[in-house]
Amino acid sequence: MYFKQFFNEQLAQYSYLVGCQKTGEAIIIDPLRDITPYIKAAEQEGLRITHVTETHIHADFASGIREVINMGAQGFVSGHGGKDWTYQDIKASIIHEGDVIKVGNVKLEVLHTPGHTPESISFLLYDNGMNVPMGLFTGDFIFVGDVGRPDLLEEAAGIKNTTETGAKQMFQSLKKMDKLPGFIQIWPGHGAGSACGKSLGAVPMTTLGYERANSWAFQINEEQVFINTLTSEQPEPPYYFAEMKRINRDGVALMHHNIVTPLDEIKERAIDIRPKEVYAENLSDGINIPYNKKFLSFAGWYLDYQKPLQLVGDYETVQKAAHDLKMIGFDNVTTYVDTVNGKSYKTIDPESFKQLDRDKINILDVRTNKEWNESHFKEAVHIHFGKLLKKSVPFNKNEKIYVHCQSGVRSAIAMSILEQQGFTNLININDGYQAIK
Amino acid sequence: MYFKQFFNEQLAQYSYLVGCQKTGEAIIIDPLRDITPYIKAAEQEGLRITHVTETHIHADFASGIREVINMGAQGFVSGHGGKDWTYQDIKASIIHEGDVIKVGNVKLEVLHTPGHTPESISFLLYDNGMNVPMGLFTGDFIFVGDVGRPDLLEEAAGIKNTTETGAKQMFQSLKKMDKLPGFIQIWPGHGAGSACGKSLGAVPMTTLGYERANSWAFQINEEQVFINTLTSEQPEPPYYFAEMKRINRDGVALMHHNIVTPLDEIKERAIDIRPKEVYAENLSDGINIPYNKKFLSFAGWYLDYQKPLQLVGDYETVQKAAHDLKMIGFDNVTTYVDTVNGKSYKTIDPESFKQLDRDKINILDVRTNKEWNESHFKEAVHIHFGKLLKKSVPFNKNEKIYVHCQSGVRSAIAMSILEQQGFTNLININDGYQAIK
Amino acid sequence: MYFKQFFNEQLAQYSYLVGCQKTGEAIIIDPLRDITPYIKAAEQEGLRITHVTETHIHADFASGIREVINMGAQGFVSGHGGKDWTYQDIKASIIHEGDVIKVGNVKLEVLHTPGHTPESISFLLYDNGMNVPMGLFTGDFIFVGDVGRPDLLEEAAGIKNTTETGAKQMFQSLKKMDKLPGFIQIWPGHGAGSACGKSLGAVPMTTLGYERANSWAFQINEEQVFINTLTSEQPEPPYYFAEMKRINRDGVALMHHNIVTPLDEIKERAIDIRPKEVYAENLSDGINIPYNKKFLSFAGWYLDYQKPLQLVGDYETVQKAAHDLKMIGFDNVTTYVDTVNGKSYKTIDPESFKQLDRDKINILDVRTNKEWNESHFKEAVHIHFGKLLKKSVPFNKNEKIYVHCQSGVRSAIAMSILEQQGFTNLININDGYQAIK
Amino acid sequence: MYFKQFFNEQLAQYSYLVGCQKTGEAIIIDPLRDITPYIKAAEQEGLRITHVTETHIHADFASGIREVINMGAQGFVSGHGGKDWTYQDIKASIIHEGDVIKVGNVKLEVLHTPGHTPESISFLLYDNGMNVPMGLFTGDFIFVGDVGRPDLLEEAAGIKNTTETGAKQMFQSLKKMDKLPGFIQIWPGHGAGSACGKSLGAVPMTTLGYERANSWAFQINEEQVFINTLTSEQPEPPYYFAEMKRINRDGVALMHHNIVTPLDEIKERAIDIRPKEVYAENLSDGINIPYNKKFLSFAGWYLDYQKPLQLVGDYETVQKAAHDLKMIGFDNVTTYVDTVNGKSYKTIDPESFKQLDRDKINILDVRTNKEWNESHFKEAVHIHFGKLLKKSVPFNKNEKIYVHCQSGVRSAIAMSILEQQGFTNLININDGYQAIK
Repeated sequence: MYFKQFFNEQLAQYSYLVGCQKTGEAIIIDPLRDITPYIKAAEQEGLRITHVTETHIHADFASGIREVINMGAQGFVSGHGGKDWTYQDIKASIIHEGDVIKVGNVKLEVLHTPGHTPESISFLLYDNGMNVPMGLFTGDFIFVGDVGRPDLLEEAAGIKNTTETGAKQMFQSLKKMDKLPGFIQIWPGHGAGSACGKSLGAVPMTTLGYERANSWAFQINEEQVFINTLTSEQPEPPYYFAEMKRINRDGVALMHHNIVTPLDEIKERAIDIRPKEVYAENLSDGINIPYNKKFLSFAGWYLDYQKPLQLVGDYETVQKAAHDLKMIGFDNVTTYVDTVNGKSYKTIDPESFKQLDRDKINILDVRTNKEWNESHFKEAVHIHFGKLLKKSVPFNKNEKIYVHCQSGVRSAIAMSILEQQGFTNLININDGYQAIK
Repeated sequence: MYFKQFFNEQLAQYSYLVGCQKTGEAIIIDPLRDITPYIKAAEQEGLRITHVTETHIHADFASGIREVINMGAQGFVSGHGGKDWTYQDIKASIIHEGDVIKVGNVKLEVLHTPGHTPESISFLLYDNGMNVPMGLFTGDFIFVGDVGRPDLLEEAAGIKNTTETGAKQMFQSLKKMDKLPGFIQIWPGHGAGSACGKSLGAVPMTTLGYERANSWAFQINEEQVFINTLTSEQPEPPYYFAEMKRINRDGVALMHHNIVTPLDEIKERAIDIRPKEVYAENLSDGINIPYNKKFLSFAGWYLDYQKPLQLVGDYETVQKAAHDLKMIGFDNVTTYVDTVNGKSYKTIDPESFKQLDRDKINILDVRTNKEWNESHFKEAVHIHFGKLLKKSVPFNKNEKIYVHCQSGVRSAIAMSILEQQGFTNLININDGYQAIK
Repeated sequence: MYFKQFFNEQLAQYSYLVGCQKTGEAIIIDPLRDITPYIKAAEQEGLRITHVTETHIHADFASGIREVINMGAQGFVSGHGGKDWTYQDIKASIIHEGDVIKVGNVKLEVLHTPGHTPESISFLLYDNGMNVPMGLFTGDFIFVGDVGRPDLLEEAAGIKNTTETGAKQMFQSLKKMDKLPGFIQIWPGHGAGSACGKSLGAVPMTTLGYERANSWAFQINEEQVFINTLTSEQPEPPYYFAEMKRINRDGVALMHHNIVTPLDEIKERAIDIRPKEVYAENLSDGINIPYNKKFLSFAGWYLDYQKPLQLVGDYETVQKAAHDLKMIGFDNVTTYVDTVNGKSYKTIDPESFKQLDRDKINILDVRTNKEWNESHFKEAVHIHFGKLLKKSVPFNKNEKIYVHCQSGVRSAIAMSILEQQGFTNLININDGYQAIK
Repeated sequence: MYFKQFFNEQLAQYSYLVGCQKTGEAIIIDPLRDITPYIKAAEQEGLRITHVTETHIHADFASGIREVINMGAQGFVSGHGGKDWTYQDIKASIIHEGDVIKVGNVKLEVLHTPGHTPESISFLLYDNGMNVPMGLFTGDFIFVGDVGRPDLLEEAAGIKNTTETGAKQMFQSLKKMDKLPGFIQIWPGHGAGSACGKSLGAVPMTTLGYERANSWAFQINEEQVFINTLTSEQPEPPYYFAEMKRINRDGVALMHHNIVTPLDEIKERAIDIRPKEVYAENLSDGINIPYNKKFLSFAGWYLDYQKPLQLVGDYETVQKAAHDLKMIGFDNVTTYVDTVNGKSYKTIDPESFKQLDRDKINILDVRTNKEWNESHFKEAVHIHFGKLLKKSVPFNKNEKIYVHCQSGVRSAIAMSILEQQGFTNLININDGYQAIK
């Protein structure tokens, strides 16, 4: 048996290629939209990608399952979850609990494991001729040190009253694991950095026995306690999650690359992907989201899927960023701007800020709810950085406003948005809340 | 002034980026369809691509002029040549002899220099404030050591009675050069390896004075002698040249990349891009055109622009080859096959071949007309390798046939075509005619 | 905790980077000599490589532990195994059973697990504050589906009477695993394709419980049966293994790259790294070992560490191959030859070979002992392909000799060696023994 | 004939590969120390590098002539110039005016053209069978729009009274050009951005006739006027030029790459290669010279060839910068630091600076002499940015000092040096002198 785990750092997402060397067949589990890495790996091993499946309708990235089916592979999708969770326009077999996908001599047995979403399934892998399973592809059911969150539908997609139901199902799905041996490997759908759970570990895989011994989720036997714990303090999902459900259920165009060409000026909504320090000294009219491993999760707050987007940066980085945006189904980057001749914005260092009388100044805290709840300046106003385009800031445009986040990255984003909204007297607190406390 | 020459090896094509550093403006002359290299170079120099032009409607590659105009540059195309040579659907200014394109402080003066085609123009470059020109962009008018051929329209596009007219115009256009100083540089549109002339040098640029002293074309003062010399022994243009004129005059889709995905079997016309030695030992049903700098000029004989094409090879090389085919306007590579389990074909070494009684065997010579005319086996049948799909081979399918070219590359192509046409007893002569003579 | 597994395909080797995000410290386990991948990964995660260790003195690749120590990390090496197994000239702490290496909040507990070699140790990993271990770095002790071989010292390094002792120790070391829980992950030192075991799986990791249930090594309770099974049918180790023990115990120069420059002719021992089909049609005086994932294990048979080596191939591939040879401690590639104008060698297809009367011809079988033992032509002579430089072939140099291996790859190597030894009438059997049977 | 010009952007240096396709031989003129690009180009064309020469002993980069000779090519060096200008330890033929180097059918005729240095020679190229020359490799004799400077020996290497002599020789060498036809191409040794002349054009080549018509150097017929013009206002050569003469005359180690490994802290002289904006907000103890095309010419001021150097930056950029430093003969980059947690420095915007009373503040102008002479604040102190390590700044360490250059790049370098010298109250004027004027 051939087994390879793929990690996409921006999405903190794991996908898998499993093959049978005897017959040359292979299956992808939870493919991203750019299927190049799977094709390359399969070719290198002399395997053909003959099957493809996914654990659920993803909310955080555009699925590549239709790409793989289009190249001739047989597709398999969950038949659980009811009408609202039925794939549209997809040439795939519908599978249910107990069904088996055979990939040469390798077998994947379907388990229905709802909780994160109603249709979520897991795959129990049996290698050629083995009586015991080797591992379980859990998607967003079990993570390393955590389990999937049940509230995305309600939070991101606005489908009411689904959180509590999901949490209950998650409790039952975990119970179902009792009959499986502790030595099986757990191959999750996400790692540290994903917004699909709250405390995912950075270790790429685990075992059922280790999770039983250590994960908080297996330690709680009381259903309501479990539900309360699971549903509290989940991170805010970026706005683009709402688009993803639609795209993955109903379909997205086949992937292709176009060259993003330069233009002299910003005419559309723009994201400035230069480092925050460069932006700080040379402002553009774009929202400053530096191109790094947080790019997609930050940019995902500000995309309007119906409108074109420009980028600000250099040629190479712009092409990469435009490619990455396709991973969350956004194909509409039109042009880029490479030369900016802007002003710099004002900053204050943490020491100087401490000297100020906080009662007499305006402070805007743009951190997450969780960070705010843990500790904050009582004089500050709190608006999550991702929501600044939609929520109004309760200050006058010419008032002096001190802006901070936890470490200085997200306040730079906030500065760029407020600047464009016409605030004229903004001051960024370098290194953020952690440097002041 | 900024000046950069770009060389595309597969097309033996030169294009140019010229900029004015004072104003930041730049112009591309004769862009290829993939405009990435120009964008990168301009960005690196802090220039904006504000203008674009071309010397004529190209017959050997898909022009990028529409790509550049689409990104906001001002386009300029020749207004000479008459109705048949009028650009369609292009947002460009029409220019004539004597017009001047200003790119910041750099000036390009238009000269009408027909011969290769009726609308062909050249550009005389004047740097900022200089009274004397620095050089001339000649397109397919003057090459290093040669001049453009006047017979492509008739040969490739089938427009009758244009060769002689073109040759006369070329004679006149050369006369027109008398008034220019010898020290100007000549920046041609093609280099060694192009089918747009017959003896192009491998030096990337020359001067008018050096060509006057050395090029055959400047040594002949008798018009008819010039015409005879120019029109004799030109290489056969690949069939795809006929498509190019239409594409470049009427427009081609904006460029984009799609990933060519693998498939298990050959279902369409296929080109096998593996090295000829690998092909020889492991035959596929594709036409074997190895991926090297001859790829486009060889593949160009066998493309059907209305039909899909498959490739045979590994992932990386296939994606490159598909990209390159877009340079000649062919967007229709659908899938590729990476695993072949074929037979090997029979070969004979030159020494053994010499022992045979040539009167008693079948010999197929697939070289060019020029090579055939210089010397050949009187017992051989001659069909140009590029024409084997269209011309019938005068042997029975089960007869033994010895196939040769000059050095063994093109006979491998021929072997693959004949194999698919059902010839069952083919023998390739290793190292070709040059090894036997 | 941060965890990353690195796979080197040529050596089928796994190494590991484990870090503590809280303190920013990290450890490498079993580093290769090129430490670039670890540095990059650590930088990307904001970790510093502060510790390094290895499971044993490797016999199949040059260890990078001295490189890592040289850049400032603290080294740890096994103190078990006795005088012959003591590291020389290394600035490292000596560790024994029960010792604990602390990397920030992560702990590695040393277990002495001899068998493959006397000094072999394993590391039991405990994540921050956990009472149960997460996994075990086993080096060449436990593989996926197999255990390490105990005979390398005797086979490769010529240290007599060590095989049986090693096998006994391996039996005891496996018994020692009884006290560990089945759910711990097993992180091995090699995967499929390594010569350090005989049936390694292609899955990158496993669990102790899964191995207990499935691996042959855990199913045998009788010590002598275990010893017999373990010591039978191990693959022949390439000759370079003998050098490795010395290099890794006594030290190797710090790694650096030099550009391998071209030369017109072969003057030294040479390895021709072109594809076998290209070689077959264009012979050089090099030993033909195509550059693919078998390159190191095949080349390792023919290296003379005291003498310079030339390569035959193109620039890019040659530089890569020279880099890879450094992974097994060979720094002495001097020049390369890129142009060859050789003859082709003779081949016969399997069908034609079957027609021959095997009693009347010479057949040379160059497969491994295991393949030979399973089945062979009774008329054939058997010499392992790797031993052809050292063993003499019992045929006259002008006799016709048919050469075969299993699938045609290794017979091509044999052809190139015999050719240089002066055999003049060699015939390669295409596709080898498997195609005839 | 094959001809290829290579441009190294950091050194603004041109080198050339010229080959004869008939015989497969090729020559490099003025190779850089990293000879990879020449090897690749030659291989691609099927040429062997059989000859190598250079126009003079370079002062601005480490010559690759010994590398090429070491790989087996025949070397040729100038025999003119006297004892001080004799190559040491080089296996090369000595050539003089009138000698001819034959590279297959291509001929290079030596002209002695002193002025830049006493031994400088040029090469007149004749293609196969031609009576007239095609072009002239001029090294640092004739540039596009300029000629070489005669003062480097005196300025950089401290050899007294050589400037005037050199200028006279240059005048005579130009006279020597009278006998050559105007149509020959001029292939210079440097382009725009080099410190080897003062007004080099960005066009890569020119012709003798065009230079005669336009270059200032051909317009002056009075020797003394020529000398005065040539020797005035030449840019200050970076200190490393002094090392280069020694290295290129006496030899430099063969090139190899070592991996620059990370270290936690700055222990040696360090250059911080991060962008100036990033540096400005996060100071290290390194001299901030951002890695861009000015890197070598700026870094060259601060290298101590006898001491180790550290870099500050990320892995990828650090390896590139260390490679580039080898181009000027500096092999001694030991380690790098990738994480910095520094303060930011103070800046003032041009508008605010204008409000200040310049009589009452300290201003340090770090521009070149030429910029200073053209215009400056009469209240300012002037020290060239490159000389700050060697000259003392006439202010107290705790005084407030405003630092500026022309556009803000070099003042950032100055800030980093002064910071380390213990100045505690520095203020950088954003965008420099040009923004204030």
